[in-house]
Amino acid sequence: MKRTRSSRRRGAHPQHTASEPRAPFILRKLSTFNVLSEAGLEQIEANADTILAETGMEFQGDPEILDIFGRAGCDVDGTRVRFAPGFCRRTITATAPAQFIQHARNPANSVQLGGEASVLCPSWGPPFVHDLDRGRRYASYRDFIDLVKLHHTLPWLHHSGGVVCEPVDLPANKRHLDMLYGHIRHSDRAFMGAFIGAERAGHAIDMARIVFGAEFMAENAVLYCVSNTNAPLVLDSHMSGALKTYARAGQPVACTPWVLTGAMSPATVAGTLAQILAETMATMTLTQLVNPGAPCLMGSFASTMSMKTGAPTFGTPEAGLLVLAAGQLARRLGVPLHTVGTLSSSKLPDAQSQQEAAWGLLMSMFAGANLINHATGWLEGGLVTSFEKTIIDHDLCGKIGRFFDGIDMSENAQAMEAIAKTGPGQHFLGSEHTQANYMSALFRPWTPDDNAFEHWRAAGEKDAGARANALWKSQLESYEDPGLDPEIDAALQEYIAARKAEKPDQDYY
Amino acid sequence: MKRTRSSRRRGAHPQHTASEPRAPFILRKLSTFNVLSEAGLEQIEANADTILAETGMEFQGDPEILDIFGRAGCDVDGTRVRFAPGFCRRTITATAPAQFIQHARNPANSVQLGGEASVLCPSWGPPFVHDLDRGRRYASYRDFIDLVKLHHTLPWLHHSGGVVCEPVDLPANKRHLDMLYGHIRHSDRAFMGAFIGAERAGHAIDMARIVFGAEFMAENAVLYCVSNTNAPLVLDSHMSGALKTYARAGQPVACTPWVLTGAMSPATVAGTLAQILAETMATMTLTQLVNPGAPCLMGSFASTMSMKTGAPTFGTPEAGLLVLAAGQLARRLGVPLHTVGTLSSSKLPDAQSQQEAAWGLLMSMFAGANLINHATGWLEGGLVTSFEKTIIDHDLCGKIGRFFDGIDMSENAQAMEAIAKTGPGQHFLGSEHTQANYMSALFRPWTPDDNAFEHWRAAGEKDAGARANALWKSQLESYEDPGLDPEIDAALQEYIAARKAEKPDQDYY
Repeated sequence: MKRTRSSRRRGAHPQHTASEPRAPFILRKLSTFNVLSEAGLEQIEANADTILAETGMEFQGDPEILDIFGRAGCDVDGTRVRFAPGFCRRTITATAPAQFIQHARNPANSVQLGGEASVLCPSWGPPFVHDLDRGRRYASYRDFIDLVKLHHTLPWLHHSGGVVCEPVDLPANKRHLDMLYGHIRHSDRAFMGAFIGAERAGHAIDMARIVFGAEFMAENAVLYCVSNTNAPLVLDSHMSGALKTYARAGQPVACTPWVLTGAMSPATVAGTLAQILAETMATMTLTQLVNPGAPCLMGSFASTMSMKTGAPTFGTPEAGLLVLAAGQLARRLGVPLHTVGTLSSSKLPDAQSQQEAAWGLLMSMFAGANLINHATGWLEGGLVTSFEKTIIDHDLCGKIGRFFDGIDMSENAQAMEAIAKTGPGQHFLGSEHTQANYMSALFRPWTPDDNAFEHWRAAGEKDAGARANALWKSQLESYEDPGLDPEIDAALQEYIAARKAEKPDQDYY
Repeated sequence: MKRTRSSRRRGAHPQHTASEPRAPFILRKLSTFNVLSEAGLEQIEANADTILAETGMEFQGDPEILDIFGRAGCDVDGTRVRFAPGFCRRTITATAPAQFIQHARNPANSVQLGGEASVLCPSWGPPFVHDLDRGRRYASYRDFIDLVKLHHTLPWLHHSGGVVCEPVDLPANKRHLDMLYGHIRHSDRAFMGAFIGAERAGHAIDMARIVFGAEFMAENAVLYCVSNTNAPLVLDSHMSGALKTYARAGQPVACTPWVLTGAMSPATVAGTLAQILAETMATMTLTQLVNPGAPCLMGSFASTMSMKTGAPTFGTPEAGLLVLAAGQLARRLGVPLHTVGTLSSSKLPDAQSQQEAAWGLLMSMFAGANLINHATGWLEGGLVTSFEKTIIDHDLCGKIGRFFDGIDMSENAQAMEAIAKTGPGQHFLGSEHTQANYMSALFRPWTPDDNAFEHWRAAGEKDAGARANALWKSQLESYEDPGLDPEIDAALQEYIAARKAEKPDQDYY
């Protein structure tokens, strides 16, 4: 699993001789899976239009937005905005791009967002981290950097992500600067901007300009913002401030209702879908009114809740149906789909965590999702990033990537000569065909123990979590610095120091 | 989770007031997922025909079969049989039924095999059992009966299965009698026959006649046989003997190549598919030549192997592609698909076991499989039935069943009034709509802990395996005897005693 990788600067092509193939993203060769009929989709779309026309959506704390909607002819009543049926769809389809590239500082790692591309991103947001040595604890910036480095070594992830954990040892009002720096310094993959508030979004854009150059950035996406609605039907100024800032800079915004059905939306899939579509369309419409043609994604982070306890639940049948239908709705809007991956409410990297994780990631991939946030590591409903689960989920990322390569129908893969030569009752282990193909024919995940019981016992009777514990540590040891131009590095550090000096530390948002 | 269930006899309708809905099988309302194009399918079919025409298949130790094939015009050369291109397909499609019912002694539990039906069966074949209290140990008849009873309590399984574990404390040459009795006595679901050899198959048919009556059985399927080829391209007399016996009695035979790609078939998906199709078509052809119109299924138990150690591997990308393509091939043949479910090579009910289990069961369901063997409990590549994994996998069975119900588009499910009434920024927890729907709207698996960390800690920090341990014990305690007509019971016992008296015990097959 060791990769050797020459240190390189932005613009240089990668020269690593990785033993693991390292694709910049998944290009799906298989179809999507559809769960709603044409009539069902039209009904959901009509319902979303009705919600937007009759109930409308609240845009709170941001008078500029109300003005933007008003000038576009929407019905603005206080902070409530109502949309004529069809207006949002027309506005989005007129100018939002169907696909685009988010550039990484290493061009080999740039990701396509849209079409048949699927980009897998690490865990986002947890204030805690967990590993089997140190248990559950508040996350620190040290953990943040370890996670950025660990993710960078993982061949089947595609993106450095954003708040891979929340470094709560840093002041809340400044840590976004350190997080952005951590991604830029320690990984050369694409990364996300700061999501909360116009000021922090502006900092992310400033720092990206230092790395990519203002000219390049004016024409290209190099950041990524997730704008969550406060379901039902509210967008607050923290989110809209960042949204406007990124949209104006031509940077992509994933307009993502976050709902637990039964709590923030009706307890039914069809009801939740209409609400999600209404919220995401209103929010995407805002991006296009702010800057027509700015990239936006339809986002959906829809799961369920326990009707017994009110706790969020993941990997459920309804969550699967929701994301698959969301994929259909996004394709009809002609925008990429942003969604979520290996979510779990488990506290440990145990059987529950993988039943839920596998369900979630597979459903999102079958939905044709273009960016999957939280494709690794999430536990406890997003409170924890687990180092071990990161490794175990990463196997799943690799498997699903290989799966969506589809079936090789080349003459070599058809193996007709091998079958004829081997003949009935013989085995293929020693056949020329097997010898020629065994390195590449079958995907090899890292964590499973496939050995006989006796070997497994002799190796210490380790479960998958214990094996993953050894793996993340060896991966972290194998991390190789991708390098960063010292001038860029110095400029970033200078910028960060200046921003930090502007105000006192605060431990709240 | 307690079910109360009145004791009842064969023919009586169920009167249980289960808190869990208990469907006799899944009726899929969603489509299948296709991985091969028309051209790809035609190529695989042409390759299978070429294999059958040029290499042919070995039928060993059973001269009668050679005679049957010879009379049908096949090219018989020693024990090798070659088939003219198209012959097998024509023979199968001419008479094999597209779907049929396997009757259970409780008619409410009869299962449809074919069409949109999917029937989930428990683990089959392991000589060991595992639970967290007693560890891994050789299986006994006591374990066998415990598993039959446990499975009978599980609402999201549909079938009592066959060798749910191998009771190695009973003589190998007679234990099939005890196993058949165990299923008939302790469950009123459908069950499988004995698979190995004509004599044991005959015993299963005799015992089924005692339960169902010879007249009923002459016209109806009440047993189920899996006939495994010895891949590549061999059928031995143990399998063909049982196959002929069941086919003559009009009982279904799942003609199932068992392959690990790279060992028993080429190391590629396309090569393996052609070989599987050749083997299953030759075997299904045999059933139709023996008894035209006897029910048969295309079977596929295709997984992969570790190219490092030669060990079987499960839940892999290639295994997923294989079953999805097999589903397409079966639909083109117009026969039901038999395949496998939650396979794993893990030694424990851990994260590995569920990543592999979820992958396997989901892929088989997306393939449109009509009977899924090993839908619960399998560990260690089939050496172990795990009591805890049975419970954890069973959650997955429930989830996938609910998922394939698809999206309810009723006016109630659209929830437009609830959305309008609740309005922006409010929550749906207390809404009339949520109150009216919360019991049925969201599926509830048994094993997950969705509670907050603090509650989970207070409850003993249990992982999914530990929770499943408590669950299987409480389920087993809740088991209620479905009852069996005392006359039938006595006749069965008399029959078994007579068969056992015919020969001495043997501890080998």
